[in-house]
Amino acid sequence: MTRRLLAVVTLLATSALPAFVLPAAAQTAAAPASTGLTGPLVLEKQGSFFVGGRNVTSDTLSTLPAYAASGTITVEQMYVRYQVPVAAQRPPVTLIHGCCLTGKTWETTPDGRMGWDEYFVRRGHPTYVIDQVSRGRSSADPSLVNSVKLGKTPADKTPPIFAAGQEAAWAIFRFGTEYPKVHDGMRFPVAAKDEFYKQMVVDWIATMPTPNPTVKALSELSKTLDGTVLISHSQSGIYPFQTAALDTTGIAGIVSIEPGTCPAATGDLKPYMNIPIMVLWGDYVETSSRWAPRLKACREFAEALTKAGGRIDHVVLPDLGIKGNSHMLMQDDNSLEIADRLVAWIEKNVKAKKN
Amino acid sequence: MTRRLLAVVTLLATSALPAFVLPAAAQTAAAPASTGLTGPLVLEKQGSFFVGGRNVTSDTLSTLPAYAASGTITVEQMYVRYQVPVAAQRPPVTLIHGCCLTGKTWETTPDGRMGWDEYFVRRGHPTYVIDQVSRGRSSADPSLVNSVKLGKTPADKTPPIFAAGQEAAWAIFRFGTEYPKVHDGMRFPVAAKDEFYKQMVVDWIATMPTPNPTVKALSELSKTLDGTVLISHSQSGIYPFQTAALDTTGIAGIVSIEPGTCPAATGDLKPYMNIPIMVLWGDYVETSSRWAPRLKACREFAEALTKAGGRIDHVVLPDLGIKGNSHMLMQDDNSLEIADRLVAWIEKNVKAKKN
Repeated sequence: MTRRLLAVVTLLATSALPAFVLPAAAQTAAAPASTGLTGPLVLEKQGSFFVGGRNVTSDTLSTLPAYAASGTITVEQMYVRYQVPVAAQRPPVTLIHGCCLTGKTWETTPDGRMGWDEYFVRRGHPTYVIDQVSRGRSSADPSLVNSVKLGKTPADKTPPIFAAGQEAAWAIFRFGTEYPKVHDGMRFPVAAKDEFYKQMVVDWIATMPTPNPTVKALSELSKTLDGTVLISHSQSGIYPFQTAALDTTGIAGIVSIEPGTCPAATGDLKPYMNIPIMVLWGDYVETSSRWAPRLKACREFAEALTKAGGRIDHVVLPDLGIKGNSHMLMQDDNSLEIADRLVAWIEKNVKAKKN
Repeated sequence: MTRRLLAVVTLLATSALPAFVLPAAAQTAAAPASTGLTGPLVLEKQGSFFVGGRNVTSDTLSTLPAYAASGTITVEQMYVRYQVPVAAQRPPVTLIHGCCLTGKTWETTPDGRMGWDEYFVRRGHPTYVIDQVSRGRSSADPSLVNSVKLGKTPADKTPPIFAAGQEAAWAIFRFGTEYPKVHDGMRFPVAAKDEFYKQMVVDWIATMPTPNPTVKALSELSKTLDGTVLISHSQSGIYPFQTAALDTTGIAGIVSIEPGTCPAATGDLKPYMNIPIMVLWGDYVETSSRWAPRLKACREFAEALTKAGGRIDHVVLPDLGIKGNSHMLMQDDNSLEIADRLVAWIEKNVKAKKN
């Protein structure tokens, strides 16, 4: 019996499962005929745009003669690429990547399998993929770097941009306890790790104001989409909650995958009371000194929210018999099965607006 | 009579046109039925991947406690997103953006019209959109910036990253002679200029070795695609030529749109002898002190290549009665008509491999 099949059988054998644990096929209506899970991908429309942004002036945009030092640039805009299936009957999902990465997170996996960006479309969801402000196709501001170069600002005030090293990322992404050890049964396609490393970009997040301008942009996007499920990951895990705290308009649901931070259990829970929420965790969390405290804090938040009357599912996959998921579970070898689970959860918990 | 219609009539009235000037409809066979110019977009496949990249080690990846200072990162990889129409009968095109921009250049225009990334697919071409190495989703290396911050490198050695200011970009992109004047009859959607400015990103190109690693990555991509038309723009205008000089394998054609540089007319022309080439220019070039010398140099290159027996079309749109195009002609209000022209030129000049 293959490992994957074994996992399914294990799952089916588990009794007294809450509704969101049922196999996707049992809950999910067939996707519209024009949006099959295989065969041609049929799109009603696709494209890209920016949300947010503000103009700043600077006299250190450049130190090169070919480009003027002084002028205006736009900062804090958020790049969004979208694909909408024909006759979409399900709510739009917005995929929000984590640290040191871009929207590429959700596209073709490092080993060449279909990404969630396409799979959610095939499942009938208009799908929006963002690059966080100051990463990828969403620009940052180099003015302070150039000011240092020109001697106008002390070197120690250079903005703290960084790249995550592969060795340290290994444990953060929970491929193993430490580089290059691999967790037993781990589902991330480690043979393609070099392709994963290429996804990592220079991260300017520590130069951003708080809350990160991505949150304001997500709020604007949610209002435009008028009912989207915000699906965040890791460093961005808190963003949908921060967006809801800003304004719940347009937020139809929140799925926070392995969040770096959850809202405080003792904080104001009111913004989250009327939004269906799932917090989702993979495997090997309890033995990670980085992740175990985060899971604990999220569980406390979920318990507090439940007690207050909120609707939150705090899901730890190994508790359901699904083992081996890394931190990058949208790229693990069972990534589409996990996506099916989210589709089913949305189907059950999130009311889609009908056109 | 609308201005656009007038332009078409003017074009039709012009006699003795070379073949590539004929209206697209006269030259282009109907696109496959499954890939209409309107209605749902039907894709055989889509996805993204990286080409190239090499590992470097550094002890200044980060100055933040949360991320290790020492480790390995991958640099010089090139992000590629692709969409392939069903039963593609035409050669793949690779869209290569210019200065301070990303692959967003070719997507939805600032005023919300269809981008070339989709239009070429609808015209039957598998379409590959890249982010140049060190821009957008293709990462750069922050090590030297952090080394300055830590006092290990003198401030004046800070890498020369830059952002192009909107005021200076105005004349570079030829919206007008100077900011904020607008050329008479100019076709760029200036009302949406703010959305265009959001496309501009921090540019690390001056920190790159020569030739830019994007060239090597384009060569690798061309070999993989086994016959692609490299369509470059502005700062990347020279890249397809540099790629051909490296190795002509897999390069089925070159379209260089308003190149910053052409190969020298007096240089080695051999790499370009067996590749169909178009160099394409918009309007207002002759009166631009920045662009006029570049056009002149490209014309000299084209004349030298023609004399040597090469196949090159040096096209200046106003000479054909098509007026008003800015430097960003893939976003101008006649962008799809220009794309039609390229499709027709490819149809006539580039031999597609049949599957």
